[in-house]
Amino acid sequence: MLAEIRGLNEECGIFGVWGHPDAAQITYYGLHSLQHRGQEGAGIVTTNGEVMRGVKGLGLVTEVFKQEEMKDFYGKAAIGHVRYATAGGGGYENVQPLLFNSQSGSLALAHNGNLVNATALKHQLEGQGSIFQTTSDTEVLAHLIKRGGNLPLNERVKNALSMVKGAFAFLIMTENEMMIALDPLGMRPLSLGRLGDAFVVASETCAFDVVGAKFEREVEPGELIIISDEGIRTERYAGVQARAICSMEYVYFARPDSNVDKINVHSARKNLGRWLALEAPSEADVVIGVPDSSISAAIGYAEAMSIPYEIGLIKNRYVGRTFIQPSQSLREQGVKMKLSPVRAIVEGKRVVMVDDSIVRGTTSRRIVNMLRDAGASEVHVRISSPPIKNPCYYGIDTSTSEELIASDKTVEEIREIIGADSLSFLSNEGMLSAIGRPDSDENKGQCMACFTGKYPTEIYPDTVHPYLKC
Amino acid sequence: MLAEIRGLNEECGIFGVWGHPDAAQITYYGLHSLQHRGQEGAGIVTTNGEVMRGVKGLGLVTEVFKQEEMKDFYGKAAIGHVRYATAGGGGYENVQPLLFNSQSGSLALAHNGNLVNATALKHQLEGQGSIFQTTSDTEVLAHLIKRGGNLPLNERVKNALSMVKGAFAFLIMTENEMMIALDPLGMRPLSLGRLGDAFVVASETCAFDVVGAKFEREVEPGELIIISDEGIRTERYAGVQARAICSMEYVYFARPDSNVDKINVHSARKNLGRWLALEAPSEADVVIGVPDSSISAAIGYAEAMSIPYEIGLIKNRYVGRTFIQPSQSLREQGVKMKLSPVRAIVEGKRVVMVDDSIVRGTTSRRIVNMLRDAGASEVHVRISSPPIKNPCYYGIDTSTSEELIASDKTVEEIREIIGADSLSFLSNEGMLSAIGRPDSDENKGQCMACFTGKYPTEIYPDTVHPYLKC
Amino acid sequence: MLAEIRGLNEECGIFGVWGHPDAAQITYYGLHSLQHRGQEGAGIVTTNGEVMRGVKGLGLVTEVFKQEEMKDFYGKAAIGHVRYATAGGGGYENVQPLLFNSQSGSLALAHNGNLVNATALKHQLEGQGSIFQTTSDTEVLAHLIKRGGNLPLNERVKNALSMVKGAFAFLIMTENEMMIALDPLGMRPLSLGRLGDAFVVASETCAFDVVGAKFEREVEPGELIIISDEGIRTERYAGVQARAICSMEYVYFARPDSNVDKINVHSARKNLGRWLALEAPSEADVVIGVPDSSISAAIGYAEAMSIPYEIGLIKNRYVGRTFIQPSQSLREQGVKMKLSPVRAIVEGKRVVMVDDSIVRGTTSRRIVNMLRDAGASEVHVRISSPPIKNPCYYGIDTSTSEELIASDKTVEEIREIIGADSLSFLSNEGMLSAIGRPDSDENKGQCMACFTGKYPTEIYPDTVHPYLKC
Amino acid sequence: MLAEIRGLNEECGIFGVWGHPDAAQITYYGLHSLQHRGQEGAGIVTTNGEVMRGVKGLGLVTEVFKQEEMKDFYGKAAIGHVRYATAGGGGYENVQPLLFNSQSGSLALAHNGNLVNATALKHQLEGQGSIFQTTSDTEVLAHLIKRGGNLPLNERVKNALSMVKGAFAFLIMTENEMMIALDPLGMRPLSLGRLGDAFVVASETCAFDVVGAKFEREVEPGELIIISDEGIRTERYAGVQARAICSMEYVYFARPDSNVDKINVHSARKNLGRWLALEAPSEADVVIGVPDSSISAAIGYAEAMSIPYEIGLIKNRYVGRTFIQPSQSLREQGVKMKLSPVRAIVEGKRVVMVDDSIVRGTTSRRIVNMLRDAGASEVHVRISSPPIKNPCYYGIDTSTSEELIASDKTVEEIREIIGADSLSFLSNEGMLSAIGRPDSDENKGQCMACFTGKYPTEIYPDTVHPYLKC
Repeated sequence: MLAEIRGLNEECGIFGVWGHPDAAQITYYGLHSLQHRGQEGAGIVTTNGEVMRGVKGLGLVTEVFKQEEMKDFYGKAAIGHVRYATAGGGGYENVQPLLFNSQSGSLALAHNGNLVNATALKHQLEGQGSIFQTTSDTEVLAHLIKRGGNLPLNERVKNALSMVKGAFAFLIMTENEMMIALDPLGMRPLSLGRLGDAFVVASETCAFDVVGAKFEREVEPGELIIISDEGIRTERYAGVQARAICSMEYVYFARPDSNVDKINVHSARKNLGRWLALEAPSEADVVIGVPDSSISAAIGYAEAMSIPYEIGLIKNRYVGRTFIQPSQSLREQGVKMKLSPVRAIVEGKRVVMVDDSIVRGTTSRRIVNMLRDAGASEVHVRISSPPIKNPCYYGIDTSTSEELIASDKTVEEIREIIGADSLSFLSNEGMLSAIGRPDSDENKGQCMACFTGKYPTEIYPDTVHPYLKC
Repeated sequence: MLAEIRGLNEECGIFGVWGHPDAAQITYYGLHSLQHRGQEGAGIVTTNGEVMRGVKGLGLVTEVFKQEEMKDFYGKAAIGHVRYATAGGGGYENVQPLLFNSQSGSLALAHNGNLVNATALKHQLEGQGSIFQTTSDTEVLAHLIKRGGNLPLNERVKNALSMVKGAFAFLIMTENEMMIALDPLGMRPLSLGRLGDAFVVASETCAFDVVGAKFEREVEPGELIIISDEGIRTERYAGVQARAICSMEYVYFARPDSNVDKINVHSARKNLGRWLALEAPSEADVVIGVPDSSISAAIGYAEAMSIPYEIGLIKNRYVGRTFIQPSQSLREQGVKMKLSPVRAIVEGKRVVMVDDSIVRGTTSRRIVNMLRDAGASEVHVRISSPPIKNPCYYGIDTSTSEELIASDKTVEEIREIIGADSLSFLSNEGMLSAIGRPDSDENKGQCMACFTGKYPTEIYPDTVHPYLKC
Repeated sequence: MLAEIRGLNEECGIFGVWGHPDAAQITYYGLHSLQHRGQEGAGIVTTNGEVMRGVKGLGLVTEVFKQEEMKDFYGKAAIGHVRYATAGGGGYENVQPLLFNSQSGSLALAHNGNLVNATALKHQLEGQGSIFQTTSDTEVLAHLIKRGGNLPLNERVKNALSMVKGAFAFLIMTENEMMIALDPLGMRPLSLGRLGDAFVVASETCAFDVVGAKFEREVEPGELIIISDEGIRTERYAGVQARAICSMEYVYFARPDSNVDKINVHSARKNLGRWLALEAPSEADVVIGVPDSSISAAIGYAEAMSIPYEIGLIKNRYVGRTFIQPSQSLREQGVKMKLSPVRAIVEGKRVVMVDDSIVRGTTSRRIVNMLRDAGASEVHVRISSPPIKNPCYYGIDTSTSEELIASDKTVEEIREIIGADSLSFLSNEGMLSAIGRPDSDENKGQCMACFTGKYPTEIYPDTVHPYLKC
Repeated sequence: MLAEIRGLNEECGIFGVWGHPDAAQITYYGLHSLQHRGQEGAGIVTTNGEVMRGVKGLGLVTEVFKQEEMKDFYGKAAIGHVRYATAGGGGYENVQPLLFNSQSGSLALAHNGNLVNATALKHQLEGQGSIFQTTSDTEVLAHLIKRGGNLPLNERVKNALSMVKGAFAFLIMTENEMMIALDPLGMRPLSLGRLGDAFVVASETCAFDVVGAKFEREVEPGELIIISDEGIRTERYAGVQARAICSMEYVYFARPDSNVDKINVHSARKNLGRWLALEAPSEADVVIGVPDSSISAAIGYAEAMSIPYEIGLIKNRYVGRTFIQPSQSLREQGVKMKLSPVRAIVEGKRVVMVDDSIVRGTTSRRIVNMLRDAGASEVHVRISSPPIKNPCYYGIDTSTSEELIASDKTVEEIREIIGADSLSFLSNEGMLSAIGRPDSDENKGQCMACFTGKYPTEIYPDTVHPYLKC
């Protein structure tokens, strides 16, 4: 259910293609398959080798791009971006890719991640007379590149990448080349593929399946890939380190049909559910999952326990920006919005409810209540990840730990607050074993900072605040 | 997958409430939960006892009704309608409820079903000088009621209901009362509930869960329920007969959390899957379902076979009216639209693919191909309903049997066409047993006409054609 | 300034063409030139000889019709309508042309005028079982035609036209013919023209100039013109009478470049101004007019008096439906909306302000105040029509005489209320002489009922109220 | 007719207010009255002393600002801008005011004019690492101000203003002050007014009349006015010179109810018409003007000649961006778009047609033809300004002189091309005398460069091209 919580969606999605006559169209379908990573805005920038053009807007991919425009929106290469919903900041200016024109050529950037030293860098650049048009930390990289003097572009980009800290996956495009960069710890997912002779790059591999491309390899931490009509070459701007991919990609964020760091997400989730059954079995009549992100874990739990998996909660698919919220009075009379319980399934039953995580606890309490109102005789809550005790500085928007219920409450206290008959979380070790990294240290292989408080990078005092993350 | 096939969506959804100060708002949430029954248009008519007002439009519930308008759209009662997508006919005029004003009072109608003698009745009425504003057969009932002379309204409505033939569920509202009628065979689902002191009526019980109402009972075939500020009373316009509820409601149309004729749809589907496993077991490594309507059956099949159920096909949620269709060339290069296979799940595996039905066979062939391209070593197709051999005259839009692949092909021929390693359908008896009517005759309890060709009502030569069904 | 007053705009505009391959497009430009006659809604219905199609909507001609749709909207004939803004009734259903389909063929109607016996006729038809879809009196004619039994269409139309009373100009179209009818007194303007081999018909001749057509003749009172591929023929449904064209067409409604009953409107207005100078001269430094409809009269007055005509009031052109009205507080601080005085023109000057009419007096008082605030030393108001003392039952929406300031006040009392230094109206005789009918009796040649109270037709007790006029 | 010619509209409009609780609303009405100066886009930026917020968009003032948003859009001060239509460049980014946020405060700019050295300055700034977001020359001033080091803001602004050359009127706003600057020659109009205790500034004085403000004085060439809560003070960034206000403001651009450099525009135009009658009288039956900008001159001509002024050409008011252009074939059949002749006025008459200017000659030829087609026996064209022989570098978008018909043709040659019976232009001396500067040198008092080729400022080789002017 974590994906539902406003303020906890961290991510964006990026997609690029070089060397295909339908580059913009392919990027459209690629972004469409990454829509779950961001619904606030979307944009595409193309180049035909001479001119770069951009279309962007607030809303879903299908709302931003119109048939009419796309017909004339051709070029041999394109990069695109979907942006997640923020609490009110943002707006049109911050929709990416950012496109900067100058008399010596154009520069487009698309970014997924969060720079922990963006505030300090921006302060410094403004002191030197730079004018920022957006509140996005992506623009910081553009200014660093532009101020890089007379060096060749690849050198200026590597210098700029060395100066920014945090979690990031960047696509950079000029009239003549596309550059792909991942942060030194590889905290964000980013994969490279082939579509015939063309190169494609995407936040998640599901985009490759949708556009008919073949997965080639993961982009490596600290790597800068440069693609042009001359072909592909790779350079490094940072030394080789063990990867620390974000755990939340497996828990709730990525699409189940994607592979993240070569591990299938649906399978990983099902294993999280199986492992959870081993660690915290429960007698019950039915196992249900909180849609959509917890279904795989619930099926895994049910299979391991030999208890039937049933559809006990239904998600209303059509809730969007134009949905009229029920008034307080109607909500109190029982009008549901996103999620309804299925009375025929849960009435009189002992229910195991599998969810992917607990953030503030309010949603869990609401769902447990809903199930009891629908007649469940017992509700056992099983969470397919460890308790989230610490804020994330790499993209997730929980700036303070006060909001995290697990930061200062025991499991028993949380159980009481959410009103469950029993509650168990998966252990840190269980999570790593289930995903297939049993011998990983914390933050080797996988970033566990939100569970453990051990951050894989330096953290700055003014991190996060004045910037919109992506 | 049947719900995906244009031309085979038959249904609409209706919802009403009498005696609640937020009647229009509650109808909005009720219609929202019935959105799967019709996406082309939606409308609500309210009454405050003196004036009746309507809002309607083309598009989804969330598109048609705006916060602004709804604030001023109050009354003590309301009826609403969602309309399915038609092949191009239709348009604004046909969106329901239809609202007719006259100097002696207003009349609103909402209808789910299809009248088999509408053409003949309309011809007769036009010969008498009536002017029709819509091409909907719903308007025929309005004219029959209006022409009913000086009788009281309930008598005129009963006379009119006796004249129309076919499958229908009607909501009729005036300034002072709401009337609810179901056809003599009860071919459409329609349930009555209570929300505090107010009465609610809905095509599916999931709407009751969403608005916090309590299920009271099914509306009975041949019954006319009349609700006013004086309370509720029931009359009959036709004799008591055994019900013949549409099989397709269980197979693919209704929401899994609804009960149709008191049977939970998800459970019915899971049983269809289990029964299918008994009738047509298959060795396999994984069982997958075609989302969304076949997931329950696939889980039932997997549980009965003790083969793991996996997410092998992903449905793209954001495909809507503004989606830009890929060009033929891009489709040939492999760009997917609605459905993608999950390579990590099916690669190198023997796959059982459970689907709810086969209509023309083209979709099944496409999915089987997709799974093979993604590496499945075997694809065994299991269909959780019998072969559809005959057109439906009660709402489903297949006017000729030529389009139905099972009308003149054997199962083996179909298997070859869709390219599966094996193919089995559920038997007629299996279907009835799984749903829980083992001793039902055909068309007693459940309409099986599309499988058997035995229609429960008379069929007229000009049935279906000139009318838009709902 | 009369055109500005909500509730006093009476009119609609109609346009038709038969026998041109671009019939719909030509109707678009024709309606566009008639936009001043109605801004609430617009519609076009075409026929290609087999099928009739309609596009209509709320808003301006340029808002209702989209390039995209118009491309596919062809046929050999079309009729169109622009509808004036009503006080809230109305809505989409009432936008014309009304299009009625039936199994024996289609019927489209467009109407400008008001039927004084519509309520009675509608009551009678509903008693016989007719269902009305609109609150427009136009639909009454359709039902009368449909109920006309087995007679040929032209006979049914003539019978129906004999039954309706009041002021009307009708365009009626079927797949095979277009019919044009004017009321027996010719109270509305309607002209016939040729565009190559095609026939055109329009409320005002300015539409002919815009589409490049040649004026042929006025449609005659009591005439029914029938145009088909066989050519044009004329029949009569009423005997020959003297015409009684609405005076207000000359005073403020028609476009200055139109000829109404063969008299140019700008010239007529200029003559009204000249005649007003003869009847009510004033010493002054400048003559100004209230834009737009009073400019011609002001120039005529100025020329006759040899006083310079100046632009002393400016109308803000861009005030439309999306204009944000200034708050009461801002209005009190002096924020103007539609009309601003030109200080440099009026400051320190004796001003003659020519307006076309006074209805309630509030607008006149506001303008006089505005001119004084801008420094005018004297303001002499001259009205280029007689005092309006009586309600109009032929289209103008002043249902009671209480609203008309001249119904119970003397000129001197009105002068005091509006705060002018002097006030004069044109005399009835002056109006008729200026327009060029010096020997006209009242209501012979021109309807003078709003000035004289002598109505040229019978008036019914329930006239006007329940109907939206057009 | 000059305002009609795409590519010759030069101007924008700016408006500001300081010290009023309804600052944004007042700016809305102010911009609305300046709408004739730019229809492509509009924007408003407000400050409440702490935060600056902006709303802007493409389209008319009434399209860009919505009631909903404006309610929450308050502050004590605001600046706004309307932007003229460009040939396709432009777009959302270039809509003004530009708003730049930084960690040390915000800066908003609105600009009317054209900087002749913008290209050179931008080149230099980009070389120093600046990133430009727009193609507007307004942004150049922002970068110059930002790069001004540690000086106080007013010093940095004055330094920046000294570096830019050309014609300009700037409004600059921070959280704490509003600055107003006019170029050293005062080529653009800009006036200061009072609204109670608040200060207002506007491109044209008509905006003062509309919002109820009192004209105070013209902003002086080379002046920088600084308004804050402490009051108003004035500084100079350039020495005192004679003004060179753009002649075209009088000829066609400004609203007739505005005063430009203290001269009323309608009166100036009427005098241009009178003077033209002295220089180039013509025998004729009627005098007509090309609406809207030539009406005043036509009335002046008619009064001076004692020939009746008549409405011989009608402008269609509703032509906007959604208007469907007639096809070539329909245009050839005579379908008119913007302008129609009034046959009843011109048929059989000797006509003097007064227009404000001739640019390419194509429009004039079209109108003369139209009048002849409508039956005019003679058409004598009189132009109320001298021949335009030279491109404008101060805002008007005629980058080359090839497009100007008068650049290489004699009056007689032009007459022949446009097909008039006679043609006369006003002389340079006549223009200056009529406006009231009989003893002005060229470019003293008034810029006459487009007539004489003597430019009042230096002109750079790369002037105009890469920038969108405003």
